[in-house]
Amino acid sequence: MSLRPTLDFLLHQWLGVESLRSRERFADHSRETFDAVLDTCERIAREKYAPFNRLVDTQEPQFDGEKVILPQATHDAQKAYAESGMLSAAQDYEVGGMQLPYTVEASANAFFAMGSVSIGSGMLTTGNANLLMKHGTEAQQRVFALNEFSGRFSGTMCLSEPQAGSSLSDVITRALPDGDGFENDPLGPRYRLRGNKMWISAGEHELTENIIHLVLAKIPDENGKLVPGVKGISLFIVPKKLVDTDGQLTGERNDVALAGLNHKCGWRGTTNTLLNFGEGKYPVRGEAGAVGYLVGQPGKGLQCMFHMMNEARIGVGMAATMLGMAGYHASLDYAKNRPQGRPMGAGGKDASAPQVRIIEHADVKRMLLAQKSYCEGALALELYCARLVDEQHTGDAQAADDARLLLEVLTPIAKSWPSEWCLEANSLAIQVHGGYGYTRDFPVEQYWRDNRLNMIHEGTHGIQGMDLLGRKVLMENGKGLQLLAGRINATLERAIQIPELAAHANALGQALAQVGAATKAAWATGDPGDALANAVPYLQAFGHTVLAWIWLDVALAAHALAESPARTGRLGAMRYFFHYELPKIGAWLQVVSARDQTCASLPEAAF
Amino acid sequence: MSLRPTLDFLLHQWLGVESLRSRERFADHSRETFDAVLDTCERIAREKYAPFNRLVDTQEPQFDGEKVILPQATHDAQKAYAESGMLSAAQDYEVGGMQLPYTVEASANAFFAMGSVSIGSGMLTTGNANLLMKHGTEAQQRVFALNEFSGRFSGTMCLSEPQAGSSLSDVITRALPDGDGFENDPLGPRYRLRGNKMWISAGEHELTENIIHLVLAKIPDENGKLVPGVKGISLFIVPKKLVDTDGQLTGERNDVALAGLNHKCGWRGTTNTLLNFGEGKYPVRGEAGAVGYLVGQPGKGLQCMFHMMNEARIGVGMAATMLGMAGYHASLDYAKNRPQGRPMGAGGKDASAPQVRIIEHADVKRMLLAQKSYCEGALALELYCARLVDEQHTGDAQAADDARLLLEVLTPIAKSWPSEWCLEANSLAIQVHGGYGYTRDFPVEQYWRDNRLNMIHEGTHGIQGMDLLGRKVLMENGKGLQLLAGRINATLERAIQIPELAAHANALGQALAQVGAATKAAWATGDPGDALANAVPYLQAFGHTVLAWIWLDVALAAHALAESPARTGRLGAMRYFFHYELPKIGAWLQVVSARDQTCASLPEAAF
Repeated sequence: MSLRPTLDFLLHQWLGVESLRSRERFADHSRETFDAVLDTCERIAREKYAPFNRLVDTQEPQFDGEKVILPQATHDAQKAYAESGMLSAAQDYEVGGMQLPYTVEASANAFFAMGSVSIGSGMLTTGNANLLMKHGTEAQQRVFALNEFSGRFSGTMCLSEPQAGSSLSDVITRALPDGDGFENDPLGPRYRLRGNKMWISAGEHELTENIIHLVLAKIPDENGKLVPGVKGISLFIVPKKLVDTDGQLTGERNDVALAGLNHKCGWRGTTNTLLNFGEGKYPVRGEAGAVGYLVGQPGKGLQCMFHMMNEARIGVGMAATMLGMAGYHASLDYAKNRPQGRPMGAGGKDASAPQVRIIEHADVKRMLLAQKSYCEGALALELYCARLVDEQHTGDAQAADDARLLLEVLTPIAKSWPSEWCLEANSLAIQVHGGYGYTRDFPVEQYWRDNRLNMIHEGTHGIQGMDLLGRKVLMENGKGLQLLAGRINATLERAIQIPELAAHANALGQALAQVGAATKAAWATGDPGDALANAVPYLQAFGHTVLAWIWLDVALAAHALAESPARTGRLGAMRYFFHYELPKIGAWLQVVSARDQTCASLPEAAF
Repeated sequence: MSLRPTLDFLLHQWLGVESLRSRERFADHSRETFDAVLDTCERIAREKYAPFNRLVDTQEPQFDGEKVILPQATHDAQKAYAESGMLSAAQDYEVGGMQLPYTVEASANAFFAMGSVSIGSGMLTTGNANLLMKHGTEAQQRVFALNEFSGRFSGTMCLSEPQAGSSLSDVITRALPDGDGFENDPLGPRYRLRGNKMWISAGEHELTENIIHLVLAKIPDENGKLVPGVKGISLFIVPKKLVDTDGQLTGERNDVALAGLNHKCGWRGTTNTLLNFGEGKYPVRGEAGAVGYLVGQPGKGLQCMFHMMNEARIGVGMAATMLGMAGYHASLDYAKNRPQGRPMGAGGKDASAPQVRIIEHADVKRMLLAQKSYCEGALALELYCARLVDEQHTGDAQAADDARLLLEVLTPIAKSWPSEWCLEANSLAIQVHGGYGYTRDFPVEQYWRDNRLNMIHEGTHGIQGMDLLGRKVLMENGKGLQLLAGRINATLERAIQIPELAAHANALGQALAQVGAATKAAWATGDPGDALANAVPYLQAFGHTVLAWIWLDVALAAHALAESPARTGRLGAMRYFFHYELPKIGAWLQVVSARDQTCASLPEAAF
């Protein structure tokens, strides 16, 4: 079973990505070039990623006292990925990129996430280099970003600290000017950093010649004090090994030391580290302090980072989606081949009849269709968001601004919804396998463990809920929410014309009205404490409504095609979502609308 | 934080277990003897179980070619458990038991499940021996059961086979009479068994002198054919090592061989095996075939097994509950001690204020209260069912019969509900910990992995749903459901008198009416295919309704006490359940009532 027909349908029949060729940036592209990229990535994922997914789970990164040891398969996979050109797929031709639409890039990367989500950390390197292409100097781009795009260097993002996980305003890593003339370093104003960074993925390894850390830190004021809050945060490039202005290693190690590897429940192919910056283990010119080069303006570090946030969060949502998809395909395959039991028919069971394959049991079908509905729906959502990224970058002014605002509202859903529901899909994939699914002889338990990370990193579920209800639906006088409502209404107006879809269109209209009313009710007192106590149930209801819309829109595209099993399947998955899932929003919105304080008001001693 | 206050409240203030002293069997007991048992078990669990829970996860059972090697901690824990007398706690004084009520036995065992669910397999040994005390001959009881109660031998249940997981009618293990005079063996009619058994917990180890397998197999008819279906199944005692009529090992190994260890996602402290019976690896008297002694009548094997099923399923529900509870306590402790971020107040955030402990964040409180509501509610349900077991065994005829029938209806819920929702609690416990919860430095990810088993073993979720909607709510003309409705109505009639509880009583009444209407609608066509396509959503809605009832009944007991943080907490958890959880039943029941065939009717090619 291949992902490809689903991807092709969504990209072409549904999103019509070929129309992007009308944009100057993508003018050289065609269905053929898009297909070639997908073909290549599908092949590399099949050959270099999927076969080693269990291996990287069992052979965790090990620190031998000097180096972090990873399986050879990880080296091979990353090499193949770099050679494919995917690290710079979206970049300009002139820096060696393909000027590929983000929608196609994200689609191509889906194969790797499905094959082995943790073997590669290309997303981090690309994100790191993209940030430098946006905010770095020419020298920073040439020396760091371009070497990341080529696969010579890799990149990290160093935000969290042990005492301040999600609370970036509490960052206490300090950056002090590095001596006289620090401002005139050709690689950017030069500082010395001291502090500890936690949860740094790909923070130490031997996969590449060098590791380029992007580090959030604070520059103390004239009294040596750190500015409280996020306003004091600046962004620095801190290479593991020092480089000259040609990007060659000087032979000197920077003062960045591995303080520990995190041993995780899943996602074990990716090294995750605690790093010490500037503790003096590797003094530079005889002095403790990690050398770092300022990116952009002092105090504007978080803005540079947040610029990458939407794509990073879509990336997490896509990873969650593809883990769910991998489990769906595995359990579908199992269900088609495993004989067991007999269906309960009107005449009861005939024990002398041969056993049937478990896909013939209604409850197994329910678990499969739920997975299909969650994962193919989530994939559609991620691709829709990716298409908005392309619109934001290449559309006309109005379309670009609409895309920007829609992305603001949809990103918390694109990140959170697959993290929750494609994890549930993974649990159903285990359940379809029965006892076998609970063993490590089958891949599904690993997908489930790997996927559990996605509700945590890149902003927890709680943070996504606060972001959505506390910021996104309010921003610019609610214009983002109105834009989304406009898109939803456009879909349901088309659907209501089609008898087979009309009832679903009505259900979606009611759901949208309920979400709108709950949004108002949540903020009726104007007190964030009242509104945000139930931000997560709001996020869940909002997410289910968005997915119902996505499914109805996908169903419109499917409905327009000739009869086929795939068409029947897509319409079935849409019906599943409307019958079994959308009605859940009532329970979630009830506490939002009531501004229910049952949880928030319970005194600590009562737990 | 201790489980004890919650247990004491439920046992005494809520269930009034001391009243069991009025039963002749329990006349010697008192609050003091009950407390002494709980004290002992709490201490052993604290000293011998909990400290080694991570160890048994990392040091999985290993087969060295001859023996299965387990950590010393497992040997020590099982020894301490056996010495506590808990293996025979419920047995008669005359066979060395304590004549302890099952309610107290189950409560005491809860400490071990919470400390380390997989280190011990006492439940299997007790269940095995209990079955023999019910269905075995005097000699079988003396030779096998009593040695299991003492901890000298341990026991297994061998039902599943590789080609027939949950489908017991497809068992093909054969039992043939073992030569002339086979019927007159003092240990029971003697057969030779040949076949393979899968998923056998504690199927091979060196923890005890001997392992007593209870094995389902079929005796061929005069033509050598196996009777199809469950009617042909008989039950056999198959010891790993042969014993004489005094229970002494004869020195001869029986023909039972380890074919493989299953490597699981969690629950790794318990060996799980594929066993080959009678393949000739250990011939007995020169002949292949595992020697087995018939228990009860030929063809009645499954009935003997099912006799133990309710208690086994309550045991699984309790294990799921206590894993949830362990995660709740761990995450509550973490939330009380981890500083991070600042609460969102009416005045926004003040970044210069010190960070607060995360229990001060509304969403963390929500995740903690959800866990409390799931786990303490599930514990109450399990204890309620345990109390019904005592009633069935020691109540007057009418009360005993009512208890039997109520247990028939409630057992699928007691097994399935905690398996699903205390697993969700474990996921929330991870979420409260953030990234730390995803590492193996904290215990919560293991609880989550361990708990994933419980929706699978002892009858999957799907099987529980079919059992409930396909059998239990229909049996004896729906009398079980009527009895349950009577109990629920009795609770809500009391609650409706109390202003603080009246609205919840009304909500429960409506939920009960919805479940009743959905039950009728599901069966309106009389076609099991129509009704059972949505048996799992029915199970979920039924379970939530039962839990709402349990919580309202618990709240009545809490409400009657003086103000205290614990009282506030229990009433808060009840309110959480009514506000956040009970409304979910609408979505589940909608597809049941509509006899929705979206899943069942989707053709295979459309997936």
